[in-house]
Amino acid sequence: MKETLVFRIKDVDLTDPIMIEGLPGVGHVGKLVADHMVEELHAEKIIEIYSPHFPPQVMVKEDGTIKQVKNEIYARRGQNGEPDLLIIIGDYQSATNEGHYELTSIFLDIAESYKVRRIYALGGYGTGQFVDKSSVMGAATSIELVEEMKTQGVLFQENEPGGGIIGVSGLLLGLGALRGLDVICLMGVTSGYLVDPKAASEVLRVLSGILGIEVGMHALEERAKEMEKIIGKLQEMERAQSPFEAGGDEDLRYIG
Amino acid sequence: MKETLVFRIKDVDLTDPIMIEGLPGVGHVGKLVADHMVEELHAEKIIEIYSPHFPPQVMVKEDGTIKQVKNEIYARRGQNGEPDLLIIIGDYQSATNEGHYELTSIFLDIAESYKVRRIYALGGYGTGQFVDKSSVMGAATSIELVEEMKTQGVLFQENEPGGGIIGVSGLLLGLGALRGLDVICLMGVTSGYLVDPKAASEVLRVLSGILGIEVGMHALEERAKEMEKIIGKLQEMERAQSPFEAGGDEDLRYIG
Amino acid sequence: MKETLVFRIKDVDLTDPIMIEGLPGVGHVGKLVADHMVEELHAEKIIEIYSPHFPPQVMVKEDGTIKQVKNEIYARRGQNGEPDLLIIIGDYQSATNEGHYELTSIFLDIAESYKVRRIYALGGYGTGQFVDKSSVMGAATSIELVEEMKTQGVLFQENEPGGGIIGVSGLLLGLGALRGLDVICLMGVTSGYLVDPKAASEVLRVLSGILGIEVGMHALEERAKEMEKIIGKLQEMERAQSPFEAGGDEDLRYIG
Amino acid sequence: MKETLVFRIKDVDLTDPIMIEGLPGVGHVGKLVADHMVEELHAEKIIEIYSPHFPPQVMVKEDGTIKQVKNEIYARRGQNGEPDLLIIIGDYQSATNEGHYELTSIFLDIAESYKVRRIYALGGYGTGQFVDKSSVMGAATSIELVEEMKTQGVLFQENEPGGGIIGVSGLLLGLGALRGLDVICLMGVTSGYLVDPKAASEVLRVLSGILGIEVGMHALEERAKEMEKIIGKLQEMERAQSPFEAGGDEDLRYIG
Repeated sequence: MKETLVFRIKDVDLTDPIMIEGLPGVGHVGKLVADHMVEELHAEKIIEIYSPHFPPQVMVKEDGTIKQVKNEIYARRGQNGEPDLLIIIGDYQSATNEGHYELTSIFLDIAESYKVRRIYALGGYGTGQFVDKSSVMGAATSIELVEEMKTQGVLFQENEPGGGIIGVSGLLLGLGALRGLDVICLMGVTSGYLVDPKAASEVLRVLSGILGIEVGMHALEERAKEMEKIIGKLQEMERAQSPFEAGGDEDLRYIG
Repeated sequence: MKETLVFRIKDVDLTDPIMIEGLPGVGHVGKLVADHMVEELHAEKIIEIYSPHFPPQVMVKEDGTIKQVKNEIYARRGQNGEPDLLIIIGDYQSATNEGHYELTSIFLDIAESYKVRRIYALGGYGTGQFVDKSSVMGAATSIELVEEMKTQGVLFQENEPGGGIIGVSGLLLGLGALRGLDVICLMGVTSGYLVDPKAASEVLRVLSGILGIEVGMHALEERAKEMEKIIGKLQEMERAQSPFEAGGDEDLRYIG
Repeated sequence: MKETLVFRIKDVDLTDPIMIEGLPGVGHVGKLVADHMVEELHAEKIIEIYSPHFPPQVMVKEDGTIKQVKNEIYARRGQNGEPDLLIIIGDYQSATNEGHYELTSIFLDIAESYKVRRIYALGGYGTGQFVDKSSVMGAATSIELVEEMKTQGVLFQENEPGGGIIGVSGLLLGLGALRGLDVICLMGVTSGYLVDPKAASEVLRVLSGILGIEVGMHALEERAKEMEKIIGKLQEMERAQSPFEAGGDEDLRYIG
Repeated sequence: MKETLVFRIKDVDLTDPIMIEGLPGVGHVGKLVADHMVEELHAEKIIEIYSPHFPPQVMVKEDGTIKQVKNEIYARRGQNGEPDLLIIIGDYQSATNEGHYELTSIFLDIAESYKVRRIYALGGYGTGQFVDKSSVMGAATSIELVEEMKTQGVLFQENEPGGGIIGVSGLLLGLGALRGLDVICLMGVTSGYLVDPKAASEVLRVLSGILGIEVGMHALEERAKEMEKIIGKLQEMERAQSPFEAGGDEDLRYIG
């Protein structure tokens, strides 16, 4: 596999869908919200994306079978006036610099093919400290969007220059802007140390309000605990498979 | 050499061969088993694979001559009803992210060209602690295979979500599944600190039982000691050739 | 986006323009000078450059909107006998080894297309210690240029072999020389710990003298403080988005 | 510059030349010997090689002018029955994994174009401890060559499995063997901490004996001191240009 592969599993007709991105990141906030929405809204998988830019890895499930690392896109038709949705979820972001640009471009190509005009990139804003009551910070591709998000309760850092957003969320904003798309980043404030269901429910609350789609929150906390366990197991596995001996994957700094 | 090179050294006729992969990894368990099987079963080399994704390195042998870092595939015709085998062995896995995907795809292409329907990827499951009696953990591409392996004494982590397998073994499972192949990973439980002949003999015992091929174990411990020495020497050599001085291969983080 | 993209925003007619490069580096000296010149001289943007070699990142501005990481080229017609100028500014240099070579080649292609014959690459010379009175160190592609710069007050390390310049500034010198261009590097002596307006004003003073273009210095100190804040915020943001949990962008050293 | 560039500066007629490689490595032993031979034997430069795989860097010379990082090949016609020589020297080896393979393949292509049948790759064997009297360790592509080198006083690690040689020297052995060339690696035993003229003179003594070419040793010690200074300055410069501030070349591990 020398190139990123995009498998279209199913065709769907969507009208002016809104795209939502929730790949792993700080506090796994975005992933928690997006995975939750896919489940609660019974979205159907339409696209699978495999790439040599993802970590060369499979995840082992409870039943002993495996899943190849990938990103997926789910579709959900709105009911009663709700907007149609395209939701990007996945196991990992790119492990290489150029991979981030390539994968984001593919997401934007898919968005444009479905005539998406607006994208919500979900993530976490890590403070390094535990947070009592979370809130949702934002960034967007235009002043009008910033003002619109403020009316929805999203906070923006006023009069503070600087800061950045890295990875697919950042590039959806930057490269999306170059394509004339409206992109908003919603970041749940979190310590960054845990998979944070409070930060996720704040982002979900705001996003639900914006979209006008009700999403039950009950399972969110349970899902966060499950995700925390899986992440812990992955970290444990990664330490267990660390190649201390020759023949492993060490930085090559030994030149003769 | 800008591309991975596959040299077909010899043609063989095989009937429904089973592929076995044993490249370096945790505890070098997989490598120990596969190298041992190649020797004990007098398998013949049919393919050599060189790649710019491997570490840029040669190994120096006892007699002062050298071997270029490579992966090799050996073939062995089954006797008395035993299955035909294709065995992947090698010095190193890929040193680059995309290299893992490329090399695994090449192994799968070769598997499909020989009409392989089942692959056993061998490795170690590192616990970080010394293990009295080893056992064999497993993962597979389908529930049916999981159940089949359980009857062979392979252990699976029940009701524990998460965990992963990285490198060629993981990708053989993940990308193999995408091609409709049956792939099983057998991992000998080991500390991860040594080349572990006990873990290797457990994996070999289980694999022999599954394949119905008897493989003498006598030389396994001796082979483990030999491998331990070579690995130790490689690590010593790598430290000896560390480029502390300018002109070596240091991370370039100095931007002007 | 698999390739570096060069957007020509505007056509300009320039006569024998001089190119000035001020991308981020030691003490951000070069960036401070170049950004300042673009503002003070009311230069107009003519080219934007995006690349998968840049960090996959957007910067968040005070007003909550975003800017995709990029490099830009500005043009300014000289007044009253001043030379025409092309000024390269940007957010980041390349994050990959080959990216530095590719981006510098693009800058040189653009220089040649505008019939540039001389390039000034601006940077900092970090001493690791705080400097009372800064000075400007130099390097150039020919002895004649070295002598010319000495008459302008630029210092050269006499009789001291060695030393190097890394990144775009270095490659503009090296690859520029291969194309027969005259390239001079001016480096403001600085600790390297701060965004240093003193080092920047020394470089600006020397460069203004060489070009015969007066550039007001008043805003330089204010601009340095602003840049310092943005950089601090970026570092804070980068730490805040650090992926301690699985699914983040960790070195893949775990081979099985 | 997206590809490695090979500039043929001059045509020469050589008869059965022997190729010698002396790029930077442990103790800079190989580089010291090769640079010294080029000077003492008045070899003429015939080829320059630039590559996006080299560090993106220029070296600053005593006189303030610069040299782009490159590798060079020099030619020297033998006198009085001496063999013709092709000598590879340079500033750096590749900074990327694939670059090592690409550059070595280019060296071998050039060797074959000049009908080279034998290559001596020179380097250092680092012990981590100061060495009173140096010696020369070896490795080669065939048993016959090993025996031949033993008669010349080269030492081989008897009955000790393992060890490796990394970088261009290693790949010249490994990839050279694949092309049917005779390749010998001569490594001067050294601590690895200094540019070591003693280790270099041992290698030079052995090589001179093998080739039947007298090379004056007088300047070797002076050259070692000069090289030590340049390397020290480069390391100092690299530290001076370290990008602690945002906008520098930091590992991108911050995913949002």
